[in-house]
Amino acid sequence: MTRPDTMAITIAVDCMGGDHGPSVTLPATFDFLRRDPDCAAILVGPQEQLHAAVGKASNEFGARLRIHNATEVVTMSEPVASALRNKKDSSMRVAVNLVKQGDADAAISAGNTGALMAISRFVLKTLPGIDRPAIATILPTEHGHVYVLDLGANVDCQPEHLLQFGIMGAMLVSALEHRDGPSVGLLNIGEEDIKGNETVKLAGELLKASGLNFYGNIEGNDIYKGTTDVVVCDGFVGNVVLKASEGLATMVANGLKEEFSRNIFTKLSALVALPVIKAFKRRFDHRAYNGASLLGLKGIVFKSHGSADIFAFDCALERAAEAARNRLPEKIAARMAAMTVQPLAQSL
Amino acid sequence: MTRPDTMAITIAVDCMGGDHGPSVTLPATFDFLRRDPDCAAILVGPQEQLHAAVGKASNEFGARLRIHNATEVVTMSEPVASALRNKKDSSMRVAVNLVKQGDADAAISAGNTGALMAISRFVLKTLPGIDRPAIATILPTEHGHVYVLDLGANVDCQPEHLLQFGIMGAMLVSALEHRDGPSVGLLNIGEEDIKGNETVKLAGELLKASGLNFYGNIEGNDIYKGTTDVVVCDGFVGNVVLKASEGLATMVANGLKEEFSRNIFTKLSALVALPVIKAFKRRFDHRAYNGASLLGLKGIVFKSHGSADIFAFDCALERAAEAARNRLPEKIAARMAAMTVQPLAQSL
Repeated sequence: MTRPDTMAITIAVDCMGGDHGPSVTLPATFDFLRRDPDCAAILVGPQEQLHAAVGKASNEFGARLRIHNATEVVTMSEPVASALRNKKDSSMRVAVNLVKQGDADAAISAGNTGALMAISRFVLKTLPGIDRPAIATILPTEHGHVYVLDLGANVDCQPEHLLQFGIMGAMLVSALEHRDGPSVGLLNIGEEDIKGNETVKLAGELLKASGLNFYGNIEGNDIYKGTTDVVVCDGFVGNVVLKASEGLATMVANGLKEEFSRNIFTKLSALVALPVIKAFKRRFDHRAYNGASLLGLKGIVFKSHGSADIFAFDCALERAAEAARNRLPEKIAARMAAMTVQPLAQSL
Repeated sequence: MTRPDTMAITIAVDCMGGDHGPSVTLPATFDFLRRDPDCAAILVGPQEQLHAAVGKASNEFGARLRIHNATEVVTMSEPVASALRNKKDSSMRVAVNLVKQGDADAAISAGNTGALMAISRFVLKTLPGIDRPAIATILPTEHGHVYVLDLGANVDCQPEHLLQFGIMGAMLVSALEHRDGPSVGLLNIGEEDIKGNETVKLAGELLKASGLNFYGNIEGNDIYKGTTDVVVCDGFVGNVVLKASEGLATMVANGLKEEFSRNIFTKLSALVALPVIKAFKRRFDHRAYNGASLLGLKGIVFKSHGSADIFAFDCALERAAEAARNRLPEKIAARMAAMTVQPLAQSL
């Protein structure tokens, strides 16, 4: 397979991943291609099924839309080891292979996170200086948004890993938002005599010496206040915070719904308040924040939420394209190379 | 000082702690005494100031309301070491001393958490078998509430500490809610190949063998789903989750307020929706959940949120009284004693 236009950004789409498979991934990819004429997509999955599903759309996009056969599918509940060893022709693996071979600039999947991380790491390998890849996601804040990493790929982190997360997060913000020197906060706890565990204390020292725009320690509430552009934490803490936030948001949304549907009067007031409630929902629409980055790899891989709808998957595609346009892995590699000769050497 | 009635519950109130001091702690104590005729309170703080502030209320409550002099105050930002070493006559310390001396059944303070923990631990000491005291708080869930510990007293926990938190949390629920065998969940992350760090894995084994009603691992979203009655985690994770939740709740509340006050139409719809919004607020009113327990000590100490208002501080007083009525430390001690001869021995 040769690339039709070396200037274009090509995304390899795992069409079979996620709760909805092609019924979401295909229309989302079409929307994405319509909006981004400089982009191309390779749909990865069972060839015949995808051909039938694409139908007339192939005329609309011409060479910008191709199909690449993959005969297997990694299921959402599949053990990582099985996905990695036994499914070498899975749509997920083939999409990542296309990045490795240089046929695509980024891969995206809404499938099994653990499998995607393992496959990406195995196929693409980590960048020089990066011990462990991390997962970064975007969360809304009071007046903007924040990038948080790691979100579950790494537990039992060493201080050096948290430093690497800080570097990768800063480069991610630079690539996606075209901003230099984004601020980086280290998630910690505030009690004066127990200022965090030893790992976090040492990570703070490394980040201070890193040359990054290091804000210092932040606390849990600073995430949603938007105190910094990037929040660094180990994967255990990040995963728990993300899921607790999802749980709290669901509880609040359900509670509001229940109160508004309690009786005829509350239902009427819901009708009146509908435009406001809709505006409120739009404001914190988690779909707009879809698209977590697998960072630290020799290639770009994005993870969509498994339950993403068309709009959400499209948002993730847009992020992957932007990361590719701005050569995110090269940015991270360059920053890491600069680190090894400068501040880290001083701090060691 | 002798106790007026050995059947009554007496609470030593640090009147000077918190953001508002006596303007909140005194009226809250009066409300509490009015509602609970079997309770008494010892107001702790500068004698003359408190006498003047109490005024006629002393007639209303008679021997149930006393004042105990304390000449110093621990400030909210005071280093723990300074509070512990240099302020031996602080209202916080004197309130805890009253518990130690048997003059009060529980102490309560809205002051500096780190100082309160350090003073309580120094004065009261931990129960046999408890290595470290923990802080437990209550959070709302979809259809009830959940007790979460630890919330910041302990970082770098060992598996045995998480086991002890599980025991203390279960006894807290038994004491405050009169329920036997509350379910205990261990906060973990769900990715299949990275199921938590080593400490959490080992803690799961200990909890399984503990004889507690151990539910198993839970994830962040289970906190607000109310999957279990008790959630166990180390103090770092607990603190970050609690503060992130506060930050998210603030963001949502502010966002709703902003959307409803955007223009004349949204303001009118706010008026119509007001009863629903009020019902919604009441439902998740964090003030009703005020009153964190310092667990594992030879005595009862409760911590109110520093910014608590009269209603919130009153709720915390009620919790402290209930813990005293149900002899919480004795319950924990008895459970710990049972542990050392039974399940722990088997699991070692």
